[in-house]
Amino acid sequence: MSAIAVVGSVAFDTIETPSGRATEILGGSATHFAVAARYFAPVHLIAVVGDDFPATEREYLNVRDTIALELNVFADFRPRVTPAVRKAPYVFLANIDPRLQADVLAQFEAPALVACDTIGHWIDTARGPFEALLPRIDLLVVNDEEARLLSGERNVVRAARKILALGTRAVLVKRGEYGAILFSPGSVFAVPAYPLEEVFDPTGAGDAFAGGLMGALAAGGDRSETGLRRAIVYGTVLASFIVEDFGGRRLTTLTRDDIERRHREFVALTEF
Amino acid sequence: MSAIAVVGSVAFDTIETPSGRATEILGGSATHFAVAARYFAPVHLIAVVGDDFPATEREYLNVRDTIALELNVFADFRPRVTPAVRKAPYVFLANIDPRLQADVLAQFEAPALVACDTIGHWIDTARGPFEALLPRIDLLVVNDEEARLLSGERNVVRAARKILALGTRAVLVKRGEYGAILFSPGSVFAVPAYPLEEVFDPTGAGDAFAGGLMGALAAGGDRSETGLRRAIVYGTVLASFIVEDFGGRRLTTLTRDDIERRHREFVALTEF
Repeated sequence: MSAIAVVGSVAFDTIETPSGRATEILGGSATHFAVAARYFAPVHLIAVVGDDFPATEREYLNVRDTIALELNVFADFRPRVTPAVRKAPYVFLANIDPRLQADVLAQFEAPALVACDTIGHWIDTARGPFEALLPRIDLLVVNDEEARLLSGERNVVRAARKILALGTRAVLVKRGEYGAILFSPGSVFAVPAYPLEEVFDPTGAGDAFAGGLMGALAAGGDRSETGLRRAIVYGTVLASFIVEDFGGRRLTTLTRDDIERRHREFVALTEF
Repeated sequence: MSAIAVVGSVAFDTIETPSGRATEILGGSATHFAVAARYFAPVHLIAVVGDDFPATEREYLNVRDTIALELNVFADFRPRVTPAVRKAPYVFLANIDPRLQADVLAQFEAPALVACDTIGHWIDTARGPFEALLPRIDLLVVNDEEARLLSGERNVVRAARKILALGTRAVLVKRGEYGAILFSPGSVFAVPAYPLEEVFDPTGAGDAFAGGLMGALAAGGDRSETGLRRAIVYGTVLASFIVEDFGGRRLTTLTRDDIERRHREFVALTEF
């Protein structure tokens, strides 16, 4: 079982949805990713947190993780990856400034698989640095809007083809309640989402998806197309849980048995 | 291989899409359904056509079909199903007035499986007759908009649950480029669409989907959940072809080999 390193944000969110409102709950892309991934494999979490970061929350994230504390505002965040963490074979660059993503990635010794997320804001304001990063990425994880913005193409197949031409080895396009679709140069894999009667709060769904995916990859060790497909299904399963409550709350009570049960339901859902 | 009967419209369409314009091409829901279904099984087509209906088009539809000619405007269309056709075990009620759908259905002796389509117009203007029809339907085939309109629910799971409560044995919700999802009382089946680089013209996609589905069901004879799932995949495949050209044009050159090739690609696309 190989370790995963994630760099991204840890924050306290106030969330308001049609279902209600929650204040000051632990959030941030790296948090949701790490909490989902650690069902499968050890996770090193690299993030900036203030010195007022509560001990109980640190404890929660620390069960298996390393938090690199940086007492700066995010803009000045220059994480120094510790020697032990530099050996991590699985690296996830959650949504932060692509220049930072590149800085952090350069500190890893020889990652076996690097995945990367982004948002429209970085595509708009830092397209150059983001595109320069892509040839160093094995799996870009974006939603359909981001895929369109990055490629200038509305059609998902053409968008993915253009994104692959920028140098990433594969691109996974998340489509919310409609599932996800993986494009590699020689293959396409499409998978529906787990159908839910209620999406309580979509916050963190993409990060939990990536966390389940990277967790299953690291636990299984199979980085072939087959391994990647199976890992994507675990990503789908983790995303289906996190949306059932505010922020990452659902993942505080989730068990590995719950995950395996829903995984079996997902297999039954898609079999023909 | 059991016969299929379809009642619906046969018409000449003028189609305008961002991809271009085509005038006076053979269309109508029953046409697209029949042309897709007859790759798999014999089809009896019951539709109203004028006495000016061209012989070449009739010939095209007649390869294996029975066209019940009615020289009336559609509103007065009261089809008399011929004795041979009344024995058809598979019946598809394409999108026409639900009172007509009920009239036609009542003439069949003992259909093994009845599927039904509709559009928003009938849900809006003839909800009573449509709801009265549902307990006689084994499989309702609607798109996501129609499912919402019929149920008053935005969420597809809740919409499907409400629709099942109206009496249809199963409901298939088509979601365009995102695939389709089948709800039966004890089971859910979700399937992505075949990803296409270009959707030239979506006209007839839903009818071709239903045609492929009913064709595969009639050819295979397995009306269990497993048989239904496999048939839905063939529906997906036929829908993926028809959108590649204007109206039903793509189906004039399509071969059974093309269908099986894309079916294999679809299996590879979804395997994990």
